[in-house]
Amino acid sequence: MVQRLIGAIEAGGTKFVLAVAREDGTILREARIATRTPDECFPEVAQFFREAAAAHGPLASFGVASFGPIDIDPASSTYGTFTTTPKPGWAGARFHDVLGEFGAPIAVDTDVNGAALGEWLKGAGQGCTTLAYTTVGTGIGTGVVHKGAPLMGFSHYESGHIQPPRDAAVDPFLGACPFHGDCLEGLAAGPAIAARWGQSLSELGSPPEKVELIAGYVAHLAASLVLLHMPDRLIFGGGVMKAPGLLQAVRRQTERKLAGYVRAPQLDPGLEQFIVAPGLGDHAGITGAIELGRIAADQ
Amino acid sequence: MVQRLIGAIEAGGTKFVLAVAREDGTILREARIATRTPDECFPEVAQFFREAAAAHGPLASFGVASFGPIDIDPASSTYGTFTTTPKPGWAGARFHDVLGEFGAPIAVDTDVNGAALGEWLKGAGQGCTTLAYTTVGTGIGTGVVHKGAPLMGFSHYESGHIQPPRDAAVDPFLGACPFHGDCLEGLAAGPAIAARWGQSLSELGSPPEKVELIAGYVAHLAASLVLLHMPDRLIFGGGVMKAPGLLQAVRRQTERKLAGYVRAPQLDPGLEQFIVAPGLGDHAGITGAIELGRIAADQ
Repeated sequence: MVQRLIGAIEAGGTKFVLAVAREDGTILREARIATRTPDECFPEVAQFFREAAAAHGPLASFGVASFGPIDIDPASSTYGTFTTTPKPGWAGARFHDVLGEFGAPIAVDTDVNGAALGEWLKGAGQGCTTLAYTTVGTGIGTGVVHKGAPLMGFSHYESGHIQPPRDAAVDPFLGACPFHGDCLEGLAAGPAIAARWGQSLSELGSPPEKVELIAGYVAHLAASLVLLHMPDRLIFGGGVMKAPGLLQAVRRQTERKLAGYVRAPQLDPGLEQFIVAPGLGDHAGITGAIELGRIAADQ
Repeated sequence: MVQRLIGAIEAGGTKFVLAVAREDGTILREARIATRTPDECFPEVAQFFREAAAAHGPLASFGVASFGPIDIDPASSTYGTFTTTPKPGWAGARFHDVLGEFGAPIAVDTDVNGAALGEWLKGAGQGCTTLAYTTVGTGIGTGVVHKGAPLMGFSHYESGHIQPPRDAAVDPFLGACPFHGDCLEGLAAGPAIAARWGQSLSELGSPPEKVELIAGYVAHLAASLVLLHMPDRLIFGGGVMKAPGLLQAVRRQTERKLAGYVRAPQLDPGLEQFIVAPGLGDHAGITGAIELGRIAADQ
């Protein structure tokens, strides 16, 4: 089978990963550029894909997994456009502006949906009909892949802004979210942990009581994802999740919260198969971006 | 166009609604029978569809929207089978046992997914790409219709068992759920309200402070549904929602909880278009069951 060539971008807050790959995911060419303004980045992006096309042949489609907020509704007239981001120069920038010259379909989704798709295809979510991938880092976000594609409603999900139960006697911290105070992101993302305790969980030596507190909030999200998506597996990644013991504590507290109500082979005793770490590490995003492009090439 | 005939069952805890309809939803014949054991009900169900087929012609498919717990995974070997229900005789009963003789495809989903589909097709959810329908009655459950079909993971959703924040100083009631205590169903379903206050909200005269308390829990579900499904509209039905002022309070508290973070044309100021009552009343379930059958006939 002659494989089509896919252009892919993982657009992060600090760097862009650019790749040209065969549709089976084999990367033929890859580059990283620092994220600056679109005026600075976009010419380098165009140049990369022009050179790749000259060397390997025309590109059948593009997949982009990007930081946001960005319009990911293919039916929208502003699909692929950054909306209200405070990042200088990016509000109103559109991936179609730089990729349009190649005359190929362009799929744009969020970074977390891209990572979810990558983990589903080649990482810890392989074989799942429904997979929820959550990152707990600078922010908290979840992508749900269902039957091979990320789910969305009128926009991408915003799981980090769910408000979990908080016992003020145990955790008097009022939360760091400028919109909601003590939503999940305001309580358990990296900046919230730093605001509460001055250091990250790992820097603090991952003391059990602090790990259990953060785990309780993450477990509230895990339980909510079970009850509102019934995924075959939950992946938790991101910098905060690297704290020793945190993933294990999330498993224990999620099992306690569900309290045996949901029974299925997917929820193994101890949840060791159900709640897992990512399998692809930093490679999930670009893997998902390539798959977004491959899907777009089929449509 | 010659319309196919669809057999439909809305299986409730107290009654079954049986219907034969054209695929546009026009009901040609309808009957209601009391829910007893399958040994008592199933022969009457078979008799109804035999007579209907004799009068109107062969049935192209069946759609069933049923009480549960029931296996709704079409890929499962026990699809359409009641699982652990305490209802006498129903554990292990299967709709295929009574409908198999007609040799037509059989689609089985939950009552709440059926109602969600009915509301999407002909009720308050018309035109929505993604619609969340929630019933707050004897229990609490949500069906999400996405691109014309109910969403599910490894099983149907169980929104009623999410644990919302509870301020024990305001609401010392520990909750009535045998599994979770103060989950949504344990705090805000009809039996929980009766256990807490001895009467329903309506019987109590819908005093504002009690309405606001229940509305806060329902609004937690509304906000969670927004953040994890981004539906174009939320419908709230069921007996509890008939309490005067409750739907309005849910709108106010949901808007306060979201705090302007999610911006979209769907979320109108005041949420009067976004959070609405059902449009079909008691007719949503059978309407959805017919549509489930119609979808099955197409497959």
